[in-house]
Amino acid sequence: MAKSRTAPGQEDLTPRYRDVRALSEALAAPLSDADATAQSMPDASPAKWHLAHTSWFFETFVLRDHLPSYRPFDPHYAYLFNSYYEGEGERHARPLRGMLTRPSLDDILSYRAHVDAALLAALPGMDPQAQALVMLGLQHEQQHQELMLTDIQHLLSLNPLEPALFDAPSGMPAALPGAIHWIEGRQGLVEIGDDGKGDFAFDCEGPRHKALLHPHALAHRPVTNAEWIGFIEDGGYRDPALWLSDGWAWTQAEAIAAPLYWRQEQQGWTRFGLDGRKPVNPAAPVCHISLYEADAYARWAGARLPTEEEWESGALNVPPTSGNQLDGPACPRPQATDDNSALTRMFGDVWEWTGSAYRPYPGFHADDGALGEYNGKFMSGQFVLKGGSCATPRGHVRASYRNFFYPHQRWQFTGLRLAKDL
Amino acid sequence: MAKSRTAPGQEDLTPRYRDVRALSEALAAPLSDADATAQSMPDASPAKWHLAHTSWFFETFVLRDHLPSYRPFDPHYAYLFNSYYEGEGERHARPLRGMLTRPSLDDILSYRAHVDAALLAALPGMDPQAQALVMLGLQHEQQHQELMLTDIQHLLSLNPLEPALFDAPSGMPAALPGAIHWIEGRQGLVEIGDDGKGDFAFDCEGPRHKALLHPHALAHRPVTNAEWIGFIEDGGYRDPALWLSDGWAWTQAEAIAAPLYWRQEQQGWTRFGLDGRKPVNPAAPVCHISLYEADAYARWAGARLPTEEEWESGALNVPPTSGNQLDGPACPRPQATDDNSALTRMFGDVWEWTGSAYRPYPGFHADDGALGEYNGKFMSGQFVLKGGSCATPRGHVRASYRNFFYPHQRWQFTGLRLAKDL
Amino acid sequence: MAKSRTAPGQEDLTPRYRDVRALSEALAAPLSDADATAQSMPDASPAKWHLAHTSWFFETFVLRDHLPSYRPFDPHYAYLFNSYYEGEGERHARPLRGMLTRPSLDDILSYRAHVDAALLAALPGMDPQAQALVMLGLQHEQQHQELMLTDIQHLLSLNPLEPALFDAPSGMPAALPGAIHWIEGRQGLVEIGDDGKGDFAFDCEGPRHKALLHPHALAHRPVTNAEWIGFIEDGGYRDPALWLSDGWAWTQAEAIAAPLYWRQEQQGWTRFGLDGRKPVNPAAPVCHISLYEADAYARWAGARLPTEEEWESGALNVPPTSGNQLDGPACPRPQATDDNSALTRMFGDVWEWTGSAYRPYPGFHADDGALGEYNGKFMSGQFVLKGGSCATPRGHVRASYRNFFYPHQRWQFTGLRLAKDL
Amino acid sequence: MAKSRTAPGQEDLTPRYRDVRALSEALAAPLSDADATAQSMPDASPAKWHLAHTSWFFETFVLRDHLPSYRPFDPHYAYLFNSYYEGEGERHARPLRGMLTRPSLDDILSYRAHVDAALLAALPGMDPQAQALVMLGLQHEQQHQELMLTDIQHLLSLNPLEPALFDAPSGMPAALPGAIHWIEGRQGLVEIGDDGKGDFAFDCEGPRHKALLHPHALAHRPVTNAEWIGFIEDGGYRDPALWLSDGWAWTQAEAIAAPLYWRQEQQGWTRFGLDGRKPVNPAAPVCHISLYEADAYARWAGARLPTEEEWESGALNVPPTSGNQLDGPACPRPQATDDNSALTRMFGDVWEWTGSAYRPYPGFHADDGALGEYNGKFMSGQFVLKGGSCATPRGHVRASYRNFFYPHQRWQFTGLRLAKDL
Ligand SMILES: [Fe+3]
Ligand SMILES: [Fe+3]
Ligand SMILES: [Fe+3]
Ligand SMILES: [Fe+3]
Repeated sequence: MAKSRTAPGQEDLTPRYRDVRALSEALAAPLSDADATAQSMPDASPAKWHLAHTSWFFETFVLRDHLPSYRPFDPHYAYLFNSYYEGEGERHARPLRGMLTRPSLDDILSYRAHVDAALLAALPGMDPQAQALVMLGLQHEQQHQELMLTDIQHLLSLNPLEPALFDAPSGMPAALPGAIHWIEGRQGLVEIGDDGKGDFAFDCEGPRHKALLHPHALAHRPVTNAEWIGFIEDGGYRDPALWLSDGWAWTQAEAIAAPLYWRQEQQGWTRFGLDGRKPVNPAAPVCHISLYEADAYARWAGARLPTEEEWESGALNVPPTSGNQLDGPACPRPQATDDNSALTRMFGDVWEWTGSAYRPYPGFHADDGALGEYNGKFMSGQFVLKGGSCATPRGHVRASYRNFFYPHQRWQFTGLRLAKDL
Repeated sequence: MAKSRTAPGQEDLTPRYRDVRALSEALAAPLSDADATAQSMPDASPAKWHLAHTSWFFETFVLRDHLPSYRPFDPHYAYLFNSYYEGEGERHARPLRGMLTRPSLDDILSYRAHVDAALLAALPGMDPQAQALVMLGLQHEQQHQELMLTDIQHLLSLNPLEPALFDAPSGMPAALPGAIHWIEGRQGLVEIGDDGKGDFAFDCEGPRHKALLHPHALAHRPVTNAEWIGFIEDGGYRDPALWLSDGWAWTQAEAIAAPLYWRQEQQGWTRFGLDGRKPVNPAAPVCHISLYEADAYARWAGARLPTEEEWESGALNVPPTSGNQLDGPACPRPQATDDNSALTRMFGDVWEWTGSAYRPYPGFHADDGALGEYNGKFMSGQFVLKGGSCATPRGHVRASYRNFFYPHQRWQFTGLRLAKDL
Repeated sequence: MAKSRTAPGQEDLTPRYRDVRALSEALAAPLSDADATAQSMPDASPAKWHLAHTSWFFETFVLRDHLPSYRPFDPHYAYLFNSYYEGEGERHARPLRGMLTRPSLDDILSYRAHVDAALLAALPGMDPQAQALVMLGLQHEQQHQELMLTDIQHLLSLNPLEPALFDAPSGMPAALPGAIHWIEGRQGLVEIGDDGKGDFAFDCEGPRHKALLHPHALAHRPVTNAEWIGFIEDGGYRDPALWLSDGWAWTQAEAIAAPLYWRQEQQGWTRFGLDGRKPVNPAAPVCHISLYEADAYARWAGARLPTEEEWESGALNVPPTSGNQLDGPACPRPQATDDNSALTRMFGDVWEWTGSAYRPYPGFHADDGALGEYNGKFMSGQFVLKGGSCATPRGHVRASYRNFFYPHQRWQFTGLRLAKDL
Repeated sequence: MAKSRTAPGQEDLTPRYRDVRALSEALAAPLSDADATAQSMPDASPAKWHLAHTSWFFETFVLRDHLPSYRPFDPHYAYLFNSYYEGEGERHARPLRGMLTRPSLDDILSYRAHVDAALLAALPGMDPQAQALVMLGLQHEQQHQELMLTDIQHLLSLNPLEPALFDAPSGMPAALPGAIHWIEGRQGLVEIGDDGKGDFAFDCEGPRHKALLHPHALAHRPVTNAEWIGFIEDGGYRDPALWLSDGWAWTQAEAIAAPLYWRQEQQGWTRFGLDGRKPVNPAAPVCHISLYEADAYARWAGARLPTEEEWESGALNVPPTSGNQLDGPACPRPQATDDNSALTRMFGDVWEWTGSAYRPYPGFHADDGALGEYNGKFMSGQFVLKGGSCATPRGHVRASYRNFFYPHQRWQFTGLRLAKDL
C-alpha cells in the first residue's frame, strides 16, 4: 500500500496511538492462533504477521532510530517482520510467512505490549521528527488493519466450512436504488493533491499541483450488485469485445465468471464475507471485482472509469469521514434512498477503481532511505483506487488518498463508479 | 505409504487401540494450534490433519460400515479428512490442507474422543472382519505417526527461528564405527513376502513368493555421516558421472549439495532435527537423502544399492523390533561399536533406500473398493525403502514391509546401506 | 503494436502499396525457410508469419469485406494468420506459431502475390472507405516490418553460432558525444495528439487535446552506451534503491545485469545485433533496455523519464522523417557531434521509453468491430515509447505516435532520454 | 534411448554403414528445411538435429578418438549436437534445439557427407575396437531413425493443416481379429538377457542371467483399436479405480480421454499419423498410449501387463525380424487372420509396454567414460518396452532389447499386450 510524513500538528499523539493500536487487537480478537498464522496466498499475510509488522515499523523507524536506550523485544524479529524495505536488509521470504507458527499470537501480543510501553513512555518528550514518524506508523497500521481483514476473509473463504468471523445484519432492502444520475464535474484547471493542511498525508499524495480536466460527469453512486447481475446475465463475462486484452486472458486462464467469493446456487447468487456466506444483496455496491472487470463493465454500460483526477476533484467537497467505513462489521451496505443530485457514497463501502495507472504526481520525489521505499517503488503496473471501503478505519482516507493494486487483484473491497465524457 | 488386512489373531485389540491412539496425541502434545495447522509443502500435511484423518479412517471404514447406530461427529469431516480414496468421493484439495485453521486442534481432539468412545464401546462385540479393519486402522495410524513427525520437522525447518520440539542427547561418540564389512547374502531361490503368520501385514507385502537372488553381499551397517562428508569433500555432488540423469537434473534445478537440513557453518556441518540445529554427528547414519543421492553415493563407493529382495532376505533373521525406533526423541543415533560380523541396524534409525522400483510382488492383487486404493495405485515412479526409522513406532515394521517414496523425496528419515555383486 | 484509420488524402495508393509490400520481402530476403519459420519466444513471431499475417489483414479487411468477387488464397489461412482479433473468430495459438513449418516461405510469397494482384487490380476503383483500410493495412505492415526484424534478431541470438544477417560498418567514433544539455520544454497548456492533418494516424493517437505541462527539461540526446557502462560499473544493477519494486524482482528472477544481447568479454562489452556480435560502441545510444532499466538509470542519474506529453510536445518541431530510421542495416548509430542547443535524435535510432502508462488519450473511443481491437484493448500494464528506431520504416512515425510495450520487454530497439523538473 | 558395444563379428561394416546412413537421409527426404528445423516439445528433436547428432556420434567416438588425422567439419558442432554426454562437455540446451535455423539442412547433409567420406575411407583399416564403435554408431543411428519419425509426426500434428508425409493404404479389413487367446509361458528359471552371440547388443541388455518366472500367460496378440474403443465407451478414462494414482492425476491435468492423435468426429474416431488424418482402423493394434493408459486398460480387462522377463522369455523363439517393421510407410497395420495358437506380432507394429521399471539387469555395470552414459543413467522413473514398432528399422530389435520411456510419454508407437497369472 502507501505512505508519507507530513509533520503532525501539535496534537498530543498519545490517545490516537492508544486507539489505533487497540483497534488492531480488537480486530484480531476473534482469531485463534491458527487463524492468525495461516497465509492463503503470497499476496496476503497472516494476521499475526500484520500485528507484528506494524510493531516492527515503530520499533525500527521510531524506537531504534530515536530512542538510544531502547532494547528490541527479540533481535530475530527484524528479519521476520520487515515487509519490503530493502534498505533494512535481508528478510523472511514473503510466500513463507505462513510457516511462522512461532512466535505465537500470544508472543506477538507481548511484543506489541513491549513496543507500546516503550513508545508511550517516550512519546511526550519526543522531538517533532520522531513524532512525525509515530504518525506515519499509525497511518501505516491503519492500512494494515484493512489488509488484515481482507486477508482473513480470503483465508476463511478457502475453508470448505466457510466460517463467519462475525454476524452482520443481512440488510435486504425494501427497494433498489434508482437509476444512475450523472453529476457534471469541474473542467479546466483544478488543484489536486495534498495541500499540506491536514494532519497527515502520504508522500505519493503530493505535491499539490494543477491538473487539467476535460468535460466529464461521474455517476452519483457506485454500481450495484443488481446491475452487476445484469452484466453477467447479458453475457458480459463471455464477450471478448468488452475486455482489455490482458483482462480477457485472465478470465480465460482463471475461469472468471463472477466477482470473487460469489457462487451461483439454486436460489440465486451468494457471496462469502466476514459474516459468512449470504445471498448477494442487490442494493449493495458490487465488491471484490478486478480492474479488468470494472473496465469491462464500464464498456458494457457505454461509459468509462473515472480518471483519478476527476475522482479527486469530485470528492473535494465530500466529507472524507462520511460513508460506511470501519466502525463495526466490515461489509458493504445496501442503500436504497441515495440523494441523486450530488455525488454520494464517495467514501466508504468499496474502493473505486479509476482508469489511472499509479504513477507519480508531477513533481513527486521519494524520500531518501528505507522509508522512501514506502510508496514510490510500486509505481508500475498498478491502478489507482479512491475513496476507502467498509474496512478502512474511519479518519484514515481523504480525497487525495491514492490506493493501488494490480489490475487482476480483487480480494480487497473493490468496486466502481462510472464516468463519461461530456 | 502402505496397507493391508490380514485377519488379526484372536488378540483383544482394546489395549493396542488405546496405546496407538494415545501415542498420536502424545506426539502432538508439544504443538500449538498453529503448529498443528500449517502445511509446509504439498507432500506434507498438518499435524491436525493427521490426527483427524486417522480418526476419519476408523469412522468411515469401521464405524460407518459396521456400526449402524454410529453418528458421525461432523458430516463435513468426510470431505475435509479423506486423503486419497477416490472411492469415498470428493475431498479437500491436498495443497490446501494448511488453510483449515478451523476446526481447531481442540476440536480435533474432541473428534478423536468421539471416535474412540464409539469404537471402544463396540470393539468387544465386533465381528472378525470389522476387527481386521480396526487392526488396519491402527497400522494406518502408526504410519501417520511417522509422517506427522517428519512433516513437523519440515515445517519447523522453514522457520528462521529453527525451534526445537524437544531436547535430545547430542551423543557425540568417542569413536567412529569401523570400516564396512561385507556380509554375504543367500543366493538362489529364497522365499520372501508376507508369510501370513504375523498378526498383520499390508496387502503389498504379499503374496509370499519365491525370488531368485544372485551372488551378493550387503554392508554390515548403514553409511555414516562421516562417510557422507567424504563424498561431499570428494566432489560427489559436482560430478555428473556419478548420478542418474534425473538425479543430476534435480541437483542442478534445486541447487542440491548436501542432505536436507544440512548447513555448512564455519565450525563444520550442522543439521536441523526435531531437537533443533545441532552439529552433524559423524558416527550417526546419514539421513534425509534422496534415492538419487543414495544411488550416486553407492556409485562413488564402487558399490550399488541392494535390491529389495536382497534386503528382505537378509533381514529375515533380524528381530524387527530391534534398533532405534520410536520410543523417545526421533533422531538417528550414533553407534561406534557395531558388531561387524553380521547385518546390524537393519531396523530403525533410517529407512534404507533399495534399488527396486515399487511394483507389485508376483501375484499381487489389490482389493476391491476404496481400501484397495491403499497401496496398489502408487506403484509407479517410486522406490522401495526398508527397515523403518527412528520415527517408526516400535512393532510396526518387519522384513517384508515395503515403504515407498519418489526418488527426489528426502524429508523422511531416509538413508542407505551399500550392496555389491559377488 | 498499434492502429487507426484517418481517411487518406486523395493520394494514389498504388506506388505506396508496391513499396511497402516490396520492403517486407526485401527484409526477409536473407532468410531461409527455416529462419522464417522458427519462433524464439511467445512474444515474437516467425518472419513467415509476419509476411502472411500482413497479407491476411488486407485479405480480410479489404478484399473480403469490399471486393465480393475475391477468392481467398487458402481458406485455412484465416485460422493460421489472424493475430488477436477476437471478432474474427478462432485462431492458431500464439505460442505455437513456430510449429507452422508448412505453408513454406515460398507458399507465403505466393500468397502475397495473390493478394497483391487482387488488391492492385481493385485499388483504382476502390471507394474511399476501402482505400482508408488499405492505408491502415500499409501502416500495419510497416509495424510488422519492425517487429519482423526484432524477432529475427532475437531468434538468431539464441543460436550459439550467432549468425549475422548483414554486415554493418562498426562506426567506432573518434570522439564521444559531449555531456547532456538540458532543453527547457513548453509549460502550461499545449495541444497534442493527432491533428488530423497528416495522411494517417492510428486511432490511439487522437483525439487532439489539450495537455498541461509542468516546468521541465529534456536532455538534448539519448543516453549512450558509454554512460550506461558507467551505470553498470557504479553498481546500478545491484542497488535495489534505484529500482521499481517489480523491476528489482525482475532483475533477481532473470539475473539481469546488462542490456539484452550484451556480454562481458575479456576485451570489454560486446552486443549481438543483426550484424552479428560486435563491441559495444560507446558513442551509440544504449539499446535493448527495459522500462525498468530505463527508470533505474534515470533515478541513478538524478533525473526521471519524460512523460509522453512532454516528449510529444518537444517533438512537435522536429521533422519525423529525420534520424536513423530503416533505410539500410537496422542498427543504432554512434554520433559524436550532435548539436547540443536543441533536441536531437528524437526520431530514429531507439524508441524512447516514457514514464507514461499506455492509457487512452482524453476522449478516445475505440471503433466498433474487429478493427476496434487494434489498439484500445492493450491499454493496461504497458508503457508508451516515442520516436521510432533504426528499424522503423522512414515515414511511418510522427510526434503523436504511441508505441507501447510491457515494462520488462526489451527485444525491441528501446532506449531512453532523460528529463527533469525545473 | 539405449546402447552397448559387443564386438562385431568379422563382418565388413561398409555396406551396413552405407545402408544405415542412406536410410536416415531417405527418411528425411520429404522434409523441407523448415520441417527439419522445428522442435515440437522438449522431448522431441528436430529432424536436422537427429541427422547431425548421429554424425557427431561417429565424429566424436570414432573419428576423433581413433583417426588422428581427422579434421572436424565444424568445431562448433560438438557444442550443438552433443545430446546428453556430460563427459563430452557443455552443450546446447535441449529445449532450444528448434532455434538452430542454421546450419541449414543442406549444411547438415554436407556434414554427413564429410563424416561418411572420412569414415568409409578409414573403415577397412580400422582396429576392432574402433569397428565396434562404428557398429554402436550404426545401432545408435537406427534408434534415432525411429525417433526422427515419431518427432516429425508429433510436429506435423501441431499444424492445423495436418499435413501427411506420405500416403499409406488405409487397410480397412474385412474382419476383425478374433478374441484373445492366452498362451502359457515358461515358468521357473529361464535364461534371458544378451547371450553375446548376436552381432550386437546394447550394454543394458546384459549380462545374460537367470530369471524366475511365475505361472503366467500372454495374449497371443496386442490389444486392438476396436477393443480400445470398448474401453473408452465403458468409461475407462473416467473411472479412477482403474488407474495408477499418478496416471489419474495425469488424465485430469492433461484432459486425457483417448490415445494421442485421436479425435472424435461425427463419423467416428480418427487418428493422425505420418499418412495424415484417417479413420481409426479397428483391426490395427492400439498405438500412442502411455503406460498409465496401458495399465488402466489391463486392469479394466481383468488382466495385467507382462513383466519384461515374461515378455523376453516368450519372444525367444520368435524371429526378431518378423512383423511390421520399418520397410515402407511407418504405420501400425491391421491384421484379421492371426494364428491364435502362438504368440504373434511380438515384433513390429507397436512397442509393448511392460510392467517392469527400467532398472539394471543383475550384474549390469555401465562402462567408464562418456559412452557409459548411453543407457545406465536413465534407470529411474521409466518403464521397459519390448518388441519394436512399425518405425523400427528391420534388423535393429531383438528379444533382449530394452526400450524405455516415462509412463506418461506416448508419442512413440506404443501399445500393449495383456498378461495374466495362472
Ligand atoms: Fe507495511
Ligand atoms: Fe492415510
Ligand atoms: Fe498485426
Ligand atoms: Fe543419441
